[in-house]
Amino acid sequence: MTRTALSLKEARVCIVGLGLMGGSLALALRGQVARLSAVDADPATRSRALAGQIASPASDSLTLAAEADVVVLATPVGSIIELIAELPAILAPGALLMDLGSVKGPVVAAMNTLPASIDAVGGHPMCGKSVAGLEHAEADLYRDALFVLCRTGRTSPHAMRLATELAGAVGARPVEMDAAHHDRVAAVVSGLPYALSASLALTAGVRAQYDPAVWELASTGFRDTSRLAGTDPALMADILLTNAPAVLDAIGEAQRHLAGLADAVRAGDPRHLSAFLSHAQAARHAWEKETHLR
Amino acid sequence: MTRTALSLKEARVCIVGLGLMGGSLALALRGQVARLSAVDADPATRSRALAGQIASPASDSLTLAAEADVVVLATPVGSIIELIAELPAILAPGALLMDLGSVKGPVVAAMNTLPASIDAVGGHPMCGKSVAGLEHAEADLYRDALFVLCRTGRTSPHAMRLATELAGAVGARPVEMDAAHHDRVAAVVSGLPYALSASLALTAGVRAQYDPAVWELASTGFRDTSRLAGTDPALMADILLTNAPAVLDAIGEAQRHLAGLADAVRAGDPRHLSAFLSHAQAARHAWEKETHLR
Repeated sequence: MTRTALSLKEARVCIVGLGLMGGSLALALRGQVARLSAVDADPATRSRALAGQIASPASDSLTLAAEADVVVLATPVGSIIELIAELPAILAPGALLMDLGSVKGPVVAAMNTLPASIDAVGGHPMCGKSVAGLEHAEADLYRDALFVLCRTGRTSPHAMRLATELAGAVGARPVEMDAAHHDRVAAVVSGLPYALSASLALTAGVRAQYDPAVWELASTGFRDTSRLAGTDPALMADILLTNAPAVLDAIGEAQRHLAGLADAVRAGDPRHLSAFLSHAQAARHAWEKETHLR
Repeated sequence: MTRTALSLKEARVCIVGLGLMGGSLALALRGQVARLSAVDADPATRSRALAGQIASPASDSLTLAAEADVVVLATPVGSIIELIAELPAILAPGALLMDLGSVKGPVVAAMNTLPASIDAVGGHPMCGKSVAGLEHAEADLYRDALFVLCRTGRTSPHAMRLATELAGAVGARPVEMDAAHHDRVAAVVSGLPYALSASLALTAGVRAQYDPAVWELASTGFRDTSRLAGTDPALMADILLTNAPAVLDAIGEAQRHLAGLADAVRAGDPRHLSAFLSHAQAARHAWEKETHLR
């Protein structure tokens, strides 16, 4: 169990994986914790972290996590699960383990296998960019973003308080959520938009191979709808595969709506098609209203 | 045939339909033509046009077009085709007829039935907003946008020069293109992004009816990918139906890519999925390079 007296200000924090998310977390936590160390396999990233006073010390060895009160795993989900298996041999008793992975079910399941001496909370900050790496990290990335926290079988009340404090300290809005529920929703609002965006880019890309007018005529509509297709393929493969059942459900639902739209176009009745499309507009407007036109 | 001596500065221009596109064209042409009149069925729109000195005179009757050297049809495509049938009885001999419709095949076909005394050029400026109406019109809407011009069986060399001059006068980049070719490309870069965006909004909208977390967790990825779903349904029904064969082809291609992506997720091989997705990223990057990260 996390030492009950420990506040974030007193905590030694170790971030594992200094990419866009881990690096931005480090920048946002600067000056708010007792010590901020980092583990990253890439020597150039470690040099950048040290030179920029983003984290110190920085090492390629997980043993650095032994000296931390809070360890944050900020690698892709597949790697987070592998790291969780290695950590019981390293972590100090009472340490808090968190992660920033985009999929929570498999992470929480792995955390549930940890020894009772380790406190663990799953986390997913709902922010990002379509570029990766420490060089794109920024202290404001987490500002006003929702920061989902998932309770595990290894979550003490104090661990939840400390995780909540950390989310608030980087400017995010912490919200507790069931891991499976998070994954079903994330499949619809993150995985599916990416899958549709990639399908658009693939369709246009194949056409553009023999028709230069495709890129010439592509304008703001294509720009916005295809933006997510630019995301790192390895990162997206990790997110889609670790959340496969929920992602496939979401894609299946979208496929039915797309087929329904095509049927309505084929039927040729303007009033019927317009009524069909008005449901899509209503959904978009409902979201805009909910988020005050975010 | 258009009077050969006529330049844009000397031309009396009449815009039919003062919505976002027609209104923005009027604002951009202000002071660059001899007279700018407008035809619109809505009394409030006509009052706004007169009060804002956007166009004068303004009428609900197409007879105003009789006094114009250049008539620009800026209504939805279905209505453009109906108007073209009415205009031979009204237009002055030698007048230039243009349109701003998003689909060009049916418009050019209708223009080809006009009497030889009328000069006609199909047009499609590749710009817009997801909000409609004169109140959202702006003089800069056309700036740097591609303005596709389609030659018809009723296009004299001077008509093409005058249409090109008009496109340039509003800050757009005129480019000549075959109508059928334009429609095939527009289906991929405009119709398809809308159809995918609508499918996303419908999927999320149905889920959100029983799960408020859907709107809570939707972030920038959902925002951009669902933006086009907010477009006016009647306008989009018009665009999709008047370009149905090309739109259905584009949707069919995207459906195959989406099914391929789902198959790769189902197969569960990270390297295969990552390779699949890298083609989507490459296509997005190719477009970014082509447009210098527009």
